[in-house]
Amino acid sequence: MTDSPVSSGIARLTTRDADFDTRLSTLLAWEGVSDAQVQQRVDEILQAVRTRGDAALVEASNRFDRLSATGMEELTVTAPRLRQAFDGLPAEQREALASAAERIRLYHERQRPESWHYTEADGTVLGQQVTALDRAGIYVPGGKAAYPSSVLMNAIPAHVAGVREIIMVVPTPDGVLNELVLAAAHLAGVDRVFTVGGAQAVAALAYGTETVPRVDKIVGPGNIYVATAKRAVFGQVGIDMIAGPSEILVVSDGGTDPEWLAMDLFSQAEHDEDAQAILVSWDAEHLDAVEAAIDRLLPTLEREGIVRESLARRGALIQCAGREEAAALINRIAPEHLELSVANPEGWLPEIRHAGAIFMGRYTAEALGDYCAGPNHVLPTSGTARFSSPLGVYDFQKRSSIIHCSPEGASELGKVASTLARGESLTAHARSAEYRIKE
Amino acid sequence: MTDSPVSSGIARLTTRDADFDTRLSTLLAWEGVSDAQVQQRVDEILQAVRTRGDAALVEASNRFDRLSATGMEELTVTAPRLRQAFDGLPAEQREALASAAERIRLYHERQRPESWHYTEADGTVLGQQVTALDRAGIYVPGGKAAYPSSVLMNAIPAHVAGVREIIMVVPTPDGVLNELVLAAAHLAGVDRVFTVGGAQAVAALAYGTETVPRVDKIVGPGNIYVATAKRAVFGQVGIDMIAGPSEILVVSDGGTDPEWLAMDLFSQAEHDEDAQAILVSWDAEHLDAVEAAIDRLLPTLEREGIVRESLARRGALIQCAGREEAAALINRIAPEHLELSVANPEGWLPEIRHAGAIFMGRYTAEALGDYCAGPNHVLPTSGTARFSSPLGVYDFQKRSSIIHCSPEGASELGKVASTLARGESLTAHARSAEYRIKE
Repeated sequence: MTDSPVSSGIARLTTRDADFDTRLSTLLAWEGVSDAQVQQRVDEILQAVRTRGDAALVEASNRFDRLSATGMEELTVTAPRLRQAFDGLPAEQREALASAAERIRLYHERQRPESWHYTEADGTVLGQQVTALDRAGIYVPGGKAAYPSSVLMNAIPAHVAGVREIIMVVPTPDGVLNELVLAAAHLAGVDRVFTVGGAQAVAALAYGTETVPRVDKIVGPGNIYVATAKRAVFGQVGIDMIAGPSEILVVSDGGTDPEWLAMDLFSQAEHDEDAQAILVSWDAEHLDAVEAAIDRLLPTLEREGIVRESLARRGALIQCAGREEAAALINRIAPEHLELSVANPEGWLPEIRHAGAIFMGRYTAEALGDYCAGPNHVLPTSGTARFSSPLGVYDFQKRSSIIHCSPEGASELGKVASTLARGESLTAHARSAEYRIKE
Repeated sequence: MTDSPVSSGIARLTTRDADFDTRLSTLLAWEGVSDAQVQQRVDEILQAVRTRGDAALVEASNRFDRLSATGMEELTVTAPRLRQAFDGLPAEQREALASAAERIRLYHERQRPESWHYTEADGTVLGQQVTALDRAGIYVPGGKAAYPSSVLMNAIPAHVAGVREIIMVVPTPDGVLNELVLAAAHLAGVDRVFTVGGAQAVAALAYGTETVPRVDKIVGPGNIYVATAKRAVFGQVGIDMIAGPSEILVVSDGGTDPEWLAMDLFSQAEHDEDAQAILVSWDAEHLDAVEAAIDRLLPTLEREGIVRESLARRGALIQCAGREEAAALINRIAPEHLELSVANPEGWLPEIRHAGAIFMGRYTAEALGDYCAGPNHVLPTSGTARFSSPLGVYDFQKRSSIIHCSPEGASELGKVASTLARGESLTAHARSAEYRIKE
């Protein structure tokens, strides 16, 4: 035993390596595929809750969460109980939670789209009406991954969107309730909480039971059973993206304190062993300094074991040729979290096509965004930022097209529609349009 | 044989029927569930195309579309060929298609969201950057359901969104190419067309092959194999909603010509035997008149057989108590198409929470919206308007959160984040935030 730290085992790559592309692809590869056995168990649970409602929901909860409930009333948390949890928090926590909630609310209020319409010369009106979902279901993981911040991030956008009723489900393995989670539910405007989880909770939200009302959309992360169940009920209800492990890509120009960067990488890696933390820089000495900081600081972490495994399995320090190559790497990786720890981050924005959230400059640690900057921390993972967005107010609203033709407008459009409908051999369409053509 | 028409067999219900709720639920019930056999065949096709690329794609196309292609170059349609199809159309069709395309483009340009940001008192900047997908895949059904209007409705929003490359796939059963579909692709800004379909086309778009580039999102309707494949690749790529049969709900106050309404119902029913056409009114005599018009006009339809079966299986004329009950029915059904054939349709809008597209007044036949009014005809079916929207520009864009903390902002937010992170036992998060707190 010596005092010199154990190396973290984080991979060092350079884009000049002949096998760089392959190594990067391997590093990034992630597929949360459920095997046939998981699929079958989930199907059984969905079917049971769909047909037997509360009884099946209680049975499954007793079995998987090791409870002994005799009815859903024991798995229901009342509004006064939520308020009690909030009031019972230490003042510092209560204030921090309220401050975060307020900032999240302010940011999301900017996302609210407006209904619009316009009138054409002949009096025809076209537009789009925006309405909220009637009821949203928020899935909050239980046990060690029960995060009050996730309650805020999922429920506040729904509340801002104008959702009439917000239902939260959170499993309580061995009956353990997390007071911070309940307090956050109170603060975020959750209407009802059921302490159920897994595929059975997804089924209850999708189909409704005697006690749990059917919702219109289910959001929130969960384990492979939850993800498989969400995929199965998609269409019956709306769902958000199916989340993979969390990841960060930090780009540094060499000017940020290596210890800050090491800790930023740790903050991602400490989530779980599958989390991914990658640093890109064109400054080799800087990468050496960050690696040394990693080795030095690792033994000081509470979650050292998780961080070590995450960094060794999925982490990387990548040396690239320069800024242009760094930008290309960003777009290739399409990271959930992108930290631009550089001198002029604004100058990078036009080149960044794919990223869930962009943390700009040396002071914007990802952790600030995780809790309280305002934007959502539910973000597209595993490269899905190529086609999806942070959770937002728009996820709890939908649009209806508005078409109001004037008699003149209908007559003109009727001619076009008639021609096209006949071209598609849909003659009832054509005749329906032709009735509105003026002689 | 007499001259009196055969009754259509469309159901007559009133909301006063004791079993109305049950009958309505039965009528609306639709679940496009793929059985285990379909699932397995789709899995095999996905796996084959994923691992063997073009070779598997050609094999599957030959097999399912009865072709004898030897390579992907025979299943590729070039840009000059698309232009040739457009130029070769009769003038009337060409002009109608161009006019529809222009109106669709104008409407969708209004949907383009702007990036935004705001600066807080301490200099912290928060915002949202909107970017387009790099590459979109448009699935166009082949054979009898090959609709040029669908090409416009799927590709134009992608084009308006700023998608860099639009790939279209369309199967050609027995090698039959639809000139109108190719012409529409030319007009809508499609970059490349491959004449492949089914699960194999979805696989090619999701994973990429030697010839077909991997896309970021797949949109467009298809049969049960296509729907099953889309559900399976969801997460790997984005997908739009999984479409069920098309439906219309017409609400009439009794003031619209019964023949117009009959034809509006037919225009929906003629799509296929599973299509659904429902008329609601509080005027019993008016419903009688529409039913008589249905019986009278049915024998004049080219697609009489399909319409008869659709009306008998899934159609209904529903008498309700009045306007309030009609509004409640609309929200319960959450129709894909809603025709408000009433005197003051604007007065209804505030009560309508769920509908894909709203056709207002006696002149706005759904067929006008299907082709050329401007709004999209790809709409949420089977009650999914509860939580989803018409296809739009927003489906081809995504957002990135922007967070740029000033040193002062990071210091203040760091305190809040630190407290909350420690509450969640994520101490690396806390320490990352604490580095940014000023002494």
